[in-house]
Amino acid sequence: MFKRVLIANRGEIAVRIIRACQEMGIETVAVYSDEDVDAMHVRLADYSYNIGPADASESYLNKDALMEAARNTEADAVHPGYGFLSEDADFAEMVTKSGMTWIGPWADTIRKVGDKDIARAAMVPSGIPMSKGSTPLESNEDAIEKAKDVGYPIILKPVAGGGGKGMLIANNEEDLKNILNIIDIHKVKYYFEHYIEHSRHIEVQIVADNYGHVIHLGERECSLQRRNQKLLEESPSIALTPDRRAEVGALAIKAAKSVHYNNIGTVEFLLDLKTNQFNFMEINPRVQVEHGITEAVTGIDLVRTQIRIAAGEALELQQEDVKFTGHAIECRINAEDPDNNFMPSPGKVDFFLEPGGPRVRVDSGVCAGLSISPYYDSLIAKIIVHGRTRGDAIKIMRRALKEFQVRGIKTTIPLHQRILKDEYFCTGDIDTRFIRNHFSKYVQPMTPAQLKASKKARTEEEIINAINASMYYA
Amino acid sequence: MFKRVLIANRGEIAVRIIRACQEMGIETVAVYSDEDVDAMHVRLADYSYNIGPADASESYLNKDALMEAARNTEADAVHPGYGFLSEDADFAEMVTKSGMTWIGPWADTIRKVGDKDIARAAMVPSGIPMSKGSTPLESNEDAIEKAKDVGYPIILKPVAGGGGKGMLIANNEEDLKNILNIIDIHKVKYYFEHYIEHSRHIEVQIVADNYGHVIHLGERECSLQRRNQKLLEESPSIALTPDRRAEVGALAIKAAKSVHYNNIGTVEFLLDLKTNQFNFMEINPRVQVEHGITEAVTGIDLVRTQIRIAAGEALELQQEDVKFTGHAIECRINAEDPDNNFMPSPGKVDFFLEPGGPRVRVDSGVCAGLSISPYYDSLIAKIIVHGRTRGDAIKIMRRALKEFQVRGIKTTIPLHQRILKDEYFCTGDIDTRFIRNHFSKYVQPMTPAQLKASKKARTEEEIINAINASMYYA
Repeated sequence: MFKRVLIANRGEIAVRIIRACQEMGIETVAVYSDEDVDAMHVRLADYSYNIGPADASESYLNKDALMEAARNTEADAVHPGYGFLSEDADFAEMVTKSGMTWIGPWADTIRKVGDKDIARAAMVPSGIPMSKGSTPLESNEDAIEKAKDVGYPIILKPVAGGGGKGMLIANNEEDLKNILNIIDIHKVKYYFEHYIEHSRHIEVQIVADNYGHVIHLGERECSLQRRNQKLLEESPSIALTPDRRAEVGALAIKAAKSVHYNNIGTVEFLLDLKTNQFNFMEINPRVQVEHGITEAVTGIDLVRTQIRIAAGEALELQQEDVKFTGHAIECRINAEDPDNNFMPSPGKVDFFLEPGGPRVRVDSGVCAGLSISPYYDSLIAKIIVHGRTRGDAIKIMRRALKEFQVRGIKTTIPLHQRILKDEYFCTGDIDTRFIRNHFSKYVQPMTPAQLKASKKARTEEEIINAINASMYYA
Repeated sequence: MFKRVLIANRGEIAVRIIRACQEMGIETVAVYSDEDVDAMHVRLADYSYNIGPADASESYLNKDALMEAARNTEADAVHPGYGFLSEDADFAEMVTKSGMTWIGPWADTIRKVGDKDIARAAMVPSGIPMSKGSTPLESNEDAIEKAKDVGYPIILKPVAGGGGKGMLIANNEEDLKNILNIIDIHKVKYYFEHYIEHSRHIEVQIVADNYGHVIHLGERECSLQRRNQKLLEESPSIALTPDRRAEVGALAIKAAKSVHYNNIGTVEFLLDLKTNQFNFMEINPRVQVEHGITEAVTGIDLVRTQIRIAAGEALELQQEDVKFTGHAIECRINAEDPDNNFMPSPGKVDFFLEPGGPRVRVDSGVCAGLSISPYYDSLIAKIIVHGRTRGDAIKIMRRALKEFQVRGIKTTIPLHQRILKDEYFCTGDIDTRFIRNHFSKYVQPMTPAQLKASKKARTEEEIINAINASMYYA
């Protein structure tokens, strides 16, 4: 087993990884930017190492600085968390080539699943169902032609990258032409898929060792999204029967095997509510923000599992050993003002009292006295509750949200409280357009001034693009 | 179901009960002394009511003030928690007579189990094994005669009350004579039992509805005690095989039925490590401090169960439905200085960062900025971890203890950290004399000055008694 793991991340996921390492008797190295000197992950790790200025491109995305930190602290493995460099195959390769272990899939696998075009193509021989799509767009004319074949509405997606960013919906040729005037398909490689309007986002957690043994740990329902960003996730999905769970689980395993996947990962599907078909979307080659709800219902620690698999352990667990208990829900708490178009709300946290007691887990990277930085992701805490039933989990989450006290910054707690009281949510009548349909006031496009204020570094052009994009998002 | 529950308690257990009520959609009334205006339970409850000055005898033990609070806030039930009036049959009767529901056993049951002489006698017809004992002592001569019959060593116990308080050990007649010079058996009714030197404290959680259906939820091992006060508890006990678990469970159910027990309760046994016999000690007619470890391994919420049973619900759960998963450990965190003879350490909590993340539950009644009062019990938080195995639970607890940051007051966290690293503890080689044998520096008798400082209200006589008593405790 590893002696010392460097965690190339910050915030709650760095804290999460430190906890797993400590429980396994592994030392941890936290890396931090100048902005994060006092951060929780720095406080909790055994060692810490400054990797540069606040701007992530010079610190958390700075591969050379990270490699230097790993070498100088004599780490024998690197855990990338999620975001930042977690899906960067080149970085994974740098780590491996310098004799350390990358806690994640092989670099080649990351590369394969990171290109949606290659990933989709890899699924075809195994017959994994997916939404009809195009190859990458070569010109505006090419796009218009391909759209005729695929059929409107279509959703344009960047070939690289994931996490729901940069996607645009065109309901007809006019929309597409407008979009093509905004985006530059020569700078950012795009393709599109036929857009499934009535769908649920169902993703399957998979675990694969380095020797070809792959199992799944059930699904997560992540349909509650705002602008393709997940807000609240739950496991199991009430849309699935045991048979359908087995079906999507088998599909996920088949998808993983199609790319010779190793380590933990997530296979995302859109469940078409008209045809009832699971459509493959993508594979995320890393630990997911929402991994905790799977841990709750299976009792399996995913971060420890990641580490053990990376260290070369064979996965002893068989599919039939995986048992599901109860129902788990996660709410993502962001430092954003939901009543002001989700404007980031950085600043000093004067008071921070997390909920506690039975069946409530909080993963956070914050405590009273710390400041939320404007430089990084606004996720500050995740509340994960585990009830006997979905109804029970909802009641526990309401209790937990009520208990959560944060002063000094705005958070998305009030939005979650409204969702947790919504009649459609409570009966499970949800789909990927739930927020848009039932909480439409939360999906207003930003004004240029707001966008400018929230993301200082953006150019005028990017702002305009984003606004236009948000129209086609809507 | 109840509309509004008054919680006749404070601290972490009041918070625990509020959480259960909120999850059940029941309103809560917190009561508070002048000292507790800002307390957590007051902050979290729906309503709050001042019941008097800091001194518990004028507030949390003031039955009239509590009844007034309940009437004026139109509560329809009273939850007593543990300690204070939770085992006061007269108070239970007052509550019931005024038309409210007592969330606990019938007053008659509380009375019966509260008198150890009556409780022990009630066990005889069912053949519940117990240590040989005496009837209540009538005179010093009577005591000396009875001791000859029971056989030294003996343990003197007050007939009323529980929780390990006021107990004294005599190894021989000389010890007994000295003890009889200190205590006044005409003021405090005493009896004694043959003292089992090598034993484990094994207690069984029972659940009984109002209609005679009784099940058990397995055992808790509570052998780690200092001066008969529990420090750390775990479930299951590694001393028990499945057969022996079934045996002690059946004994506990039989004991409960012997006194027509209803609601939740705990049957305490001493497992004699020489004879391997479970010896009945007492029944605690209330929720126990350490109930959370049973919740962890069974997935059953004991406080919700209490409330449902009190409301008249029949218990649907059958014994065979109760499944045990993993291993849970609880550490009691007290505001005491373990390195200074456990002197209480009241004062303002400048910083309070509880551990979080997977498999860790914290039940606390404290947050940063609050003051720990010298007037009440020094328990400020309980850490409950749930691992797959005992070894796993130990590692998680070590991680959690390391994470727990408290500034401004002293706590027992360092003691727990030492216990969690102790070789004997880790191999499970523990008994009720573990702390005395392996951590003897923590059981020094207090000096009169220390005692005086720690308990301002005590008389000189009480102090002398306590010091002498502590010799016979040893």
